[in-house]
Amino acid sequence: MSTVPGKGLLLKADPIAATFKDEVEKTLANCSHVPKLVGILSTSSLPSRTYAEFTRKQCENFGFQFVLKETGAALPDEGLGEGEGVEEAIMEANEDDSVDGVMVYFPIFGPQQDHYLQQLVSPYKDVEGLHVKFHYNLYHNIRFISPSSLSAPTSSAAGLTGDEAEKDIPPPGMVKSILPCTPLAIVKCLEYAGVYNKILPYGDRAYGKTVVVVNRSEVVGRPLAALLSNDGARVFSVDIDSIQEYTKRPSDPDSSRKYHPRHIVRPPPEAYNTLEACLAVADVVVSAVPNGTYKIPTAWLKDGCVCVNVAAEKNFEKDVRDKASLYIPAVGKVTILMLLRNLLRLQQYKTASLPSTTELPAQ
Amino acid sequence: MSTVPGKGLLLKADPIAATFKDEVEKTLANCSHVPKLVGILSTSSLPSRTYAEFTRKQCENFGFQFVLKETGAALPDEGLGEGEGVEEAIMEANEDDSVDGVMVYFPIFGPQQDHYLQQLVSPYKDVEGLHVKFHYNLYHNIRFISPSSLSAPTSSAAGLTGDEAEKDIPPPGMVKSILPCTPLAIVKCLEYAGVYNKILPYGDRAYGKTVVVVNRSEVVGRPLAALLSNDGARVFSVDIDSIQEYTKRPSDPDSSRKYHPRHIVRPPPEAYNTLEACLAVADVVVSAVPNGTYKIPTAWLKDGCVCVNVAAEKNFEKDVRDKASLYIPAVGKVTILMLLRNLLRLQQYKTASLPSTTELPAQ
Repeated sequence: MSTVPGKGLLLKADPIAATFKDEVEKTLANCSHVPKLVGILSTSSLPSRTYAEFTRKQCENFGFQFVLKETGAALPDEGLGEGEGVEEAIMEANEDDSVDGVMVYFPIFGPQQDHYLQQLVSPYKDVEGLHVKFHYNLYHNIRFISPSSLSAPTSSAAGLTGDEAEKDIPPPGMVKSILPCTPLAIVKCLEYAGVYNKILPYGDRAYGKTVVVVNRSEVVGRPLAALLSNDGARVFSVDIDSIQEYTKRPSDPDSSRKYHPRHIVRPPPEAYNTLEACLAVADVVVSAVPNGTYKIPTAWLKDGCVCVNVAAEKNFEKDVRDKASLYIPAVGKVTILMLLRNLLRLQQYKTASLPSTTELPAQ
Repeated sequence: MSTVPGKGLLLKADPIAATFKDEVEKTLANCSHVPKLVGILSTSSLPSRTYAEFTRKQCENFGFQFVLKETGAALPDEGLGEGEGVEEAIMEANEDDSVDGVMVYFPIFGPQQDHYLQQLVSPYKDVEGLHVKFHYNLYHNIRFISPSSLSAPTSSAAGLTGDEAEKDIPPPGMVKSILPCTPLAIVKCLEYAGVYNKILPYGDRAYGKTVVVVNRSEVVGRPLAALLSNDGARVFSVDIDSIQEYTKRPSDPDSSRKYHPRHIVRPPPEAYNTLEACLAVADVVVSAVPNGTYKIPTAWLKDGCVCVNVAAEKNFEKDVRDKASLYIPAVGKVTILMLLRNLLRLQQYKTASLPSTTELPAQ
């Protein structure tokens, strides 16, 4: 954390990541075998290679096994195209019993074809939490699932919603659904930054907070808006062509329910149909626009807000801390901890879903 | 079919659709119960409503049961947003044992979120063939699968490739994988139009043909390019920012293989890096660009080619038949027959995958 008089705090990801180190190390020490993560690099993208090497370093620091599988244009001497062989590499890792987790370095072909690839990774090895099963659970605020439900088509009967689950501990035989790493890492950063109020009941700890999320992709922006609103926040989801409001508060003030079991999505009130108007009331601003020229004007920010930059590029202006009380410039180091935590959980789920096991101890 | 001297034939979809009528009627007559298709309309889109009414009419003409489930902005008096309630409607239809098939009227939210929705439809009810399992099989030229594989994560061990399958008849216990309706309908149109050569062996009947496919979406263009190249054609897949070549011919002329078990994708040779150059050698041109202003210049077409318009808009110029030997202006009526055929098959697969059934008669 760095303090300059008259400026908001600069909060780097390291101390946030450190809060998960103990948990990961202890769980790893109790594993029957060292979990093995396979990274699949199939493009010539330099940021992807850097991220792959970062994954390796983090895995090795903790004592996980990491194997980088290179294919396509990641092997420049082979004359293969961008992404060539990536499907074969995924299927091979899916079918290799010695592999516990698979992560694929995106982007490869573009959003549509990449989404297809994300569905090929077995849910039992999907450490990034990008499979539709996990997104479905997230969007529907289904927090606990049966491990064996991962090997069947998506079903609404597969779990317990946050509304039914009053605590953070799954009931016997159930486990936590896997959450996508990046949105989860952002939530963890916001918890650390004091945005979540621990005095409030579990499942509603972001109540009272207004959050602007800039970007509505299926990988970051939409799942993040859903997570935050399922935790009680009012979220304005801002994309290039529209603004949506995510909330679980009933629109009818006389409703007998305190909140819906999961968020609803609606057009924002008339007064909030511009980014500027949303930012003026936002306690938290998260931006994930993959474009170096995109900048959120500091002048539009509410004094004392919390700003989180998720994109590899800087989406905030240099003077962001003139307004922000707290600025988190990157979340990658927390993301990787979430990934390793998912890896440990999935190893356990795989075992738990074998026919011989009938019940799983609570997490 | 309409003939004007000096012009190519205008071939409407009706006679092509008629060739599948008998098959559908006969299979329907042998069903233990009348298959029930649920259509889900969740937007205010007029073309989607028209298509829904068209589906109803076609279903009722044949004697299928069709139920239109309306939600979201399809119910203008309810004050619901575009797409609101669509997930709930999908899950309800998935879990209703009386429902044999589910079709969702797209577009709803945009390509990424719509792709997410497509994965929620149970593969056992996915009459449109949009689930990743079916796309995986198509891209990998896996023609025959075990019906029970539909309730497990995608696996490369789930089927027989076109290379292993020398005939169009699945071996005992296996069934045909479901193909996405629109790409399949286009293949059927091309078979009717004589593009497929029935003298050639099964699985290679488009050998010798060069095809240009304009559009590379996951719904139409990419699966179509894969289907055609898996059937032996050389395909130039043209999208807004690139041209790719799809082929299953080995690039090494001394290869002992006649062809690969499935297509490969590579950049086109230098001489074919423009649409104009590709069209100059194309025996077949298929266009699916959802944009009324996009037109393929007639002047660029090879004399005597076959042109197929798949978009709701006209992608060819009015004088296309000055060059084309045959022009198919729309394929929707064939698409619906493919959908009904898929519905009949899936009803059978669902029964076949129940634990009590051990073997399924060949199709």
